[in-house]
Amino acid sequence: MIKSILFILSATSVLMASSLSQDATKAGLMPIPNSQSELLKLIDNPKNHITDKKVSLGKKLYFDPRLSKSGFISCNSCHNLGEGGDDGIEAAVGHKWTVNPHHLNSPTVYNSVFNARQFWDGRDPDLETQAQGPIQAGPEMAATKEHVSTTINSMPSYVTEFQNAYGQDVKITFEKITDTIGLFERTLVTPSPFDDFMNGDENALNTAQKDGLKTFIEVGCTSCHNGVGIGGGMNAFNVTATYKHMNVGDFKGDKYGMVKVSLLRNITQTAPYFHNGMIKSLNEAIKEMARIQLGTKLTNKQAKSIEEFLKSLEGRKGVIAVPMLPASSATTPAPNLN
Amino acid sequence: MIKSILFILSATSVLMASSLSQDATKAGLMPIPNSQSELLKLIDNPKNHITDKKVSLGKKLYFDPRLSKSGFISCNSCHNLGEGGDDGIEAAVGHKWTVNPHHLNSPTVYNSVFNARQFWDGRDPDLETQAQGPIQAGPEMAATKEHVSTTINSMPSYVTEFQNAYGQDVKITFEKITDTIGLFERTLVTPSPFDDFMNGDENALNTAQKDGLKTFIEVGCTSCHNGVGIGGGMNAFNVTATYKHMNVGDFKGDKYGMVKVSLLRNITQTAPYFHNGMIKSLNEAIKEMARIQLGTKLTNKQAKSIEEFLKSLEGRKGVIAVPMLPASSATTPAPNLN
Repeated sequence: MIKSILFILSATSVLMASSLSQDATKAGLMPIPNSQSELLKLIDNPKNHITDKKVSLGKKLYFDPRLSKSGFISCNSCHNLGEGGDDGIEAAVGHKWTVNPHHLNSPTVYNSVFNARQFWDGRDPDLETQAQGPIQAGPEMAATKEHVSTTINSMPSYVTEFQNAYGQDVKITFEKITDTIGLFERTLVTPSPFDDFMNGDENALNTAQKDGLKTFIEVGCTSCHNGVGIGGGMNAFNVTATYKHMNVGDFKGDKYGMVKVSLLRNITQTAPYFHNGMIKSLNEAIKEMARIQLGTKLTNKQAKSIEEFLKSLEGRKGVIAVPMLPASSATTPAPNLN
Repeated sequence: MIKSILFILSATSVLMASSLSQDATKAGLMPIPNSQSELLKLIDNPKNHITDKKVSLGKKLYFDPRLSKSGFISCNSCHNLGEGGDDGIEAAVGHKWTVNPHHLNSPTVYNSVFNARQFWDGRDPDLETQAQGPIQAGPEMAATKEHVSTTINSMPSYVTEFQNAYGQDVKITFEKITDTIGLFERTLVTPSPFDDFMNGDENALNTAQKDGLKTFIEVGCTSCHNGVGIGGGMNAFNVTATYKHMNVGDFKGDKYGMVKVSLLRNITQTAPYFHNGMIKSLNEAIKEMARIQLGTKLTNKQAKSIEEFLKSLEGRKGVIAVPMLPASSATTPAPNLN
């Protein structure tokens, strides 16, 4: 039993699958499993298994702004666990108030373990690799690998925690630090009424949400938004072909001009939408996606119905205590705002 | 019983006061009381009494970056509850990465209720008034009163929480919002081994800490660092006379050139030191203060001894769950980074 996976799974045992949940399954939608062992299989890192000690340490690192050059920006600054796991800002802002040069929106960290690959262009395979990026990126946390490892090694209680988590011989490298952050992020899953429904609780969705789920399937949203993440797959969103009318800067997606499919879990809490944060309203985002990706002009009723379904993806977030960080020592690198 | 004052008071009942604790009392040092009703008398706002509902709401507001113009900076950004209640940065940074124009260091919010007045120059009488400042200051959160009240009123669950806390007729003004933040801040008290000792637990301090307390009194530190805050009084620190050799910008303290006495609670966790953040090490800060304020050149042994005592002021911080903030609505003002 991993205690650090605090997120409340449903108490309901598996009942008969409804006709609608069977349709949803056929369309590729999958629930967060209603058992911790099943969930652990989905989210664990086979190269660095989840343990309470690693997750607790990873949480501290996630919240520690001293990983950034300035000492002012932590992972949680842009992927704010109290704000839907993102920052609510159109395009990310970072070191020296620099706006993301590709005008990219900070995606949510909640359920990001269910992304097939990480970053909008999918360039990294997992959260561990992803965590290395923003810490070093000039417009984000602007730190060097050495800054990060020197900072953590300068505080005895961090060293002790790494030893307790990985053994006395642990070498606290930049990669060990980011691996530990990634492991914490893997636990940030938020089971929702949709999952309860898919796991057999027929009453977990109200009528409007069930109707919305039907519409969501019928319209074809599930062709991209599927799997456990209800999204997170690659290459479904053609940036260059469809977003000429928006100011997207020079970001061209991956080599095919595509960006990753967004997760729809907690989507009601993560406006503004799309990779460039250009769409403010969920209703408008639904209509735009149907138009661009499916060539379908949704009626107001259809869009509203899908929006009702999406509300059922608001997940239960575990209680996350603000970690009390160790004090800097004489050898901790000083914050540098420049 | 106010549940939201989670900070763990000692379980020890009052024993015989030791000779040393009597000396400390004579020198003006006072403990955080070891009973919630006594503590409440000290920290409550007579014009807006502490209740669990107000404190819970105030905590959300404290963590909500949407109170800032950019949507990126919350009270917790500079007064980080996981980082000793401050930011660890020499001089505060804020909107558009602006460094505090007077090169002033962010003071800790923990135990700030024990300050006689607020801000380095003591210009505000209490935390409620203080909270109005940084939210509106151009180099900090850069918001207007209207931005703040419009933001909070735009989210139905915030409105409901204000109604539950203050009654159905509540008008959610900027001042009501900052009053509620101030009330949350009043609860951020951190009882420490020093308090346990003063409240009768002879064994709460080790020998080095007791010796340090004696040195602290004998040298005369208690002439300024006294009361429950172990500091927090006015006008003891002469900026213009003593800091010509440091780059203090154009900040001249209050009309007499003075700044407030810092609280020493959790001082081991809030480097760098002084109003301008110019001193990195606590040992050096101790020696500088003795030199400047008391005209005393401390021996290394004396400075080390005082430092040992100061460690006993590291307080027990309550478990603070990251508040889950309501999602923005269609009428919530958009973040503005400019």
